[in-house]
Amino acid sequence: MANPKKTPRPRAANPKGFRDHFGAQVTRRHAMLAKIAEVYHLHGFDALETPAVETVAALGKFLPDVDRPNDGVFAWQEGEGMSDWLALRYDLTAPLARVAAQYRADLPMPYRRYAMGPVWRNEKPGPGRYRQFYQCDADTVGSASMAADAEMCAMLCDALEAVGIARGDYVVRINNRKVLNGVMEVAGIGDPDAHARARGIVLRAIDKLDRLGPEGVRQLLGSGRRDESGDFTAGAALDDRAIGLISDFVSTPDCGPGLDTLRSVLGSSVIGMEGLDELNLIRGDLVEQGYGPDRIAISTATVRGLGYYTGPVYEAELTFEIAGDDGAARQFGSVAGGGRYDDLVKRFTGQAVPATGVSIGVDRLLAALEAKGAFGIDDAGPVIVTVMDRAGMASAQAMAATLQQAGIRAEAYLGNPKAFGNQLKYADKRGSRFAIIEGEDERARGVVQIKDLALGAALATEVSHAEWRAQPAQVEVARADVVAEIRRRLAATP
Amino acid sequence: MANPKKTPRPRAANPKGFRDHFGAQVTRRHAMLAKIAEVYHLHGFDALETPAVETVAALGKFLPDVDRPNDGVFAWQEGEGMSDWLALRYDLTAPLARVAAQYRADLPMPYRRYAMGPVWRNEKPGPGRYRQFYQCDADTVGSASMAADAEMCAMLCDALEAVGIARGDYVVRINNRKVLNGVMEVAGIGDPDAHARARGIVLRAIDKLDRLGPEGVRQLLGSGRRDESGDFTAGAALDDRAIGLISDFVSTPDCGPGLDTLRSVLGSSVIGMEGLDELNLIRGDLVEQGYGPDRIAISTATVRGLGYYTGPVYEAELTFEIAGDDGAARQFGSVAGGGRYDDLVKRFTGQAVPATGVSIGVDRLLAALEAKGAFGIDDAGPVIVTVMDRAGMASAQAMAATLQQAGIRAEAYLGNPKAFGNQLKYADKRGSRFAIIEGEDERARGVVQIKDLALGAALATEVSHAEWRAQPAQVEVARADVVAEIRRRLAATP
Repeated sequence: MANPKKTPRPRAANPKGFRDHFGAQVTRRHAMLAKIAEVYHLHGFDALETPAVETVAALGKFLPDVDRPNDGVFAWQEGEGMSDWLALRYDLTAPLARVAAQYRADLPMPYRRYAMGPVWRNEKPGPGRYRQFYQCDADTVGSASMAADAEMCAMLCDALEAVGIARGDYVVRINNRKVLNGVMEVAGIGDPDAHARARGIVLRAIDKLDRLGPEGVRQLLGSGRRDESGDFTAGAALDDRAIGLISDFVSTPDCGPGLDTLRSVLGSSVIGMEGLDELNLIRGDLVEQGYGPDRIAISTATVRGLGYYTGPVYEAELTFEIAGDDGAARQFGSVAGGGRYDDLVKRFTGQAVPATGVSIGVDRLLAALEAKGAFGIDDAGPVIVTVMDRAGMASAQAMAATLQQAGIRAEAYLGNPKAFGNQLKYADKRGSRFAIIEGEDERARGVVQIKDLALGAALATEVSHAEWRAQPAQVEVARADVVAEIRRRLAATP
Repeated sequence: MANPKKTPRPRAANPKGFRDHFGAQVTRRHAMLAKIAEVYHLHGFDALETPAVETVAALGKFLPDVDRPNDGVFAWQEGEGMSDWLALRYDLTAPLARVAAQYRADLPMPYRRYAMGPVWRNEKPGPGRYRQFYQCDADTVGSASMAADAEMCAMLCDALEAVGIARGDYVVRINNRKVLNGVMEVAGIGDPDAHARARGIVLRAIDKLDRLGPEGVRQLLGSGRRDESGDFTAGAALDDRAIGLISDFVSTPDCGPGLDTLRSVLGSSVIGMEGLDELNLIRGDLVEQGYGPDRIAISTATVRGLGYYTGPVYEAELTFEIAGDDGAARQFGSVAGGGRYDDLVKRFTGQAVPATGVSIGVDRLLAALEAKGAFGIDDAGPVIVTVMDRAGMASAQAMAATLQQAGIRAEAYLGNPKAFGNQLKYADKRGSRFAIIEGEDERARGVVQIKDLALGAALATEVSHAEWRAQPAQVEVARADVVAEIRRRLAATP
């Protein structure tokens, strides 16, 4: 080797499961989150931003009793003798628990906060599964009142409408875990410990109702279910009466105004009746605030898979149809959900503190807005002021500055001015609508050429000759008239 | 122990060097960065968001040839046999280099991007030194033109004004490393390799001119300097002629319109003259775009400490005074800087690509805006609608919803309704201006009490009796008039 010091070139690549976001992918998410933050703020919630890094002890996901914990989080050791484990946060709730405990003497109580930011999961990446993604949460800590849950549902409606989901295109479904617990009690699996396995299967089965259908759920409640691939999932082994009771419960269509059927089923269950009362309270609060059945539905099949909810659960579903992977229309589905959970800070302080909160699926809501065409042409490139020679550069930059000062996105081409074709290719790659051309001759005469690239492309394919003459794709205007001409053309988008 | 399974409670604390941000600390930074992003976008720059995690190979900060690299970054191993090193990014430039190499076939060239987000440093934390902090960068990759550097300076002016720094309160200082290299050549330390040590000391000394003064710099150029604590810093050991030359160079006040003095000093240095020509080009471009000496200064003492700049360097300095730690007024100082650097992607591709870029010190600029009082009362708490009993909750929430729909931040108190005193304490802790009170009697009569907490506090201390009578701190209004009354009081802020 000529140079023995030479090290091999590194590969320019993301670690597996991580991705880069460009242009509108970034600005759209920011714009969406800013609108949601405004709604949360209006409802009295305060922003909280915790760092990406927490002690593993505070996260509480696992105990560092093995040499290298790898249980779903990214973790590493540091400090004297590498004794301290640190990790990237895997959600925004664990840091909230730490904050609620750490600042409990100073925080207003109830503490209402929203948080938005990336979280990290050390999991096997797959299609659509990334190891870094955004979460967007709002939680009320320290209130046991159903009014706090009602507010979450109201705020969720407001947030969806603020980002551009029209009323009628979504529904917030509410339910209560205590109602389901009541049904399970009546079905004979009421003991959380003795019937833990069966209850877990029931929860997960109901959560999959959309995908499996009533028959699939029925199988999982009974002897089990074999899927299309041949894999077998063991069932809860309930008897026919219990299976009938639970499947009737979840197949009840949206309860609408009356919960009477449920009341008769749950008659003997104290916890079930408590759940019904809570549901009624939440619905009453919401109706009084103007959130009626056009936005809120009581849905017994809404259970939210996670085990830790203890009372009300809620889920926002988009009801408009989009084309699925197979081309068939399907409802967009869930974009947000949450519920009430206890013991938020108990791990730290020994004291149980009730909390309720909602999490918006940032990537899914963004995809829904894109499917709805909510963003317009926010990814349009700047006006490109082309440059013929170094002598023209200052003039080109001054023209770009004039456009910028008028609020029009613009830049002078900063590559090699000799290759003019590259400049138009560059404008094309940027998705620019206009290029401005000023050669030596134009400069002397105080004029420029405006090239309408979008119109040029349209002319080449579909526009009639008359239209072409009425609005030519390239015009000469005085330097002083450039802003006005570009504004006129933007207003009359072809 | 009663419960042998019991594990000790974890400590609710951040890892050392990490901190939480609350309320306005979060929203102010977001608002500031959003305004900067708008300016960058207007100038034709595209957003880029890379993940927090990179391969250590791509970051290139160190080679993982030791068991546990700990050289300023947070890193850990994963993959088969723990063979792959991953790390948190320590700046936004290294990920840009990876992106420019990874997508080089698809990116428009020049590639103009801005990036904003946290970076991580595994360093010993100290006062004001954190291990996670924000950076905000804009770079143009693939343009060797001085016009790209001129644009960075123009854009920096626009960004500062957009966030609320008035013209006249800042100056963007520009210089060129080649000019300094020319001076060092004339001073007899022109060889980057043979004179590496002396040149490094010269650069660092000039960078500290503000702090050390001309005499301190002179000492560092000569035999060395002993600071107040008694610590000795070795000097560059230059002779008197060289010391005189370099200290004259950096003590030249802002060059203003003429660079003639410099030209005569640099006469024999080709690289120095090249630097002067580049400086002239940049200034010419800026003047033609309207960025004159009221905003731009050529400053020979601006060197930017980092070693890797190769041509133009620039720095934005806030010129207004604030009270320093000792109470004495001092200029706020630098809030942003950057320059031209080569070889951005060479590590990956073998091909040198020129680039120029600017980085805004997010925390410093935020502190400057806070010192200027730029944010008003954006940290005011919501209107608190108090609740006397559970029966009043729905009504209180409906009142909060009415206020929200009028764009007034509001919430119903969600804690225990029995302790009314706690509700006013809560409003106080939130920094709320108004509390709304509706007891059973008021509810029956369709009225509420509005308590003006700020006015109440003012009345208690300073306001005269006549004012008190004119604007009482508690008034009764019809429910329908609450929005109007609060708007009236907000407009007539006491």
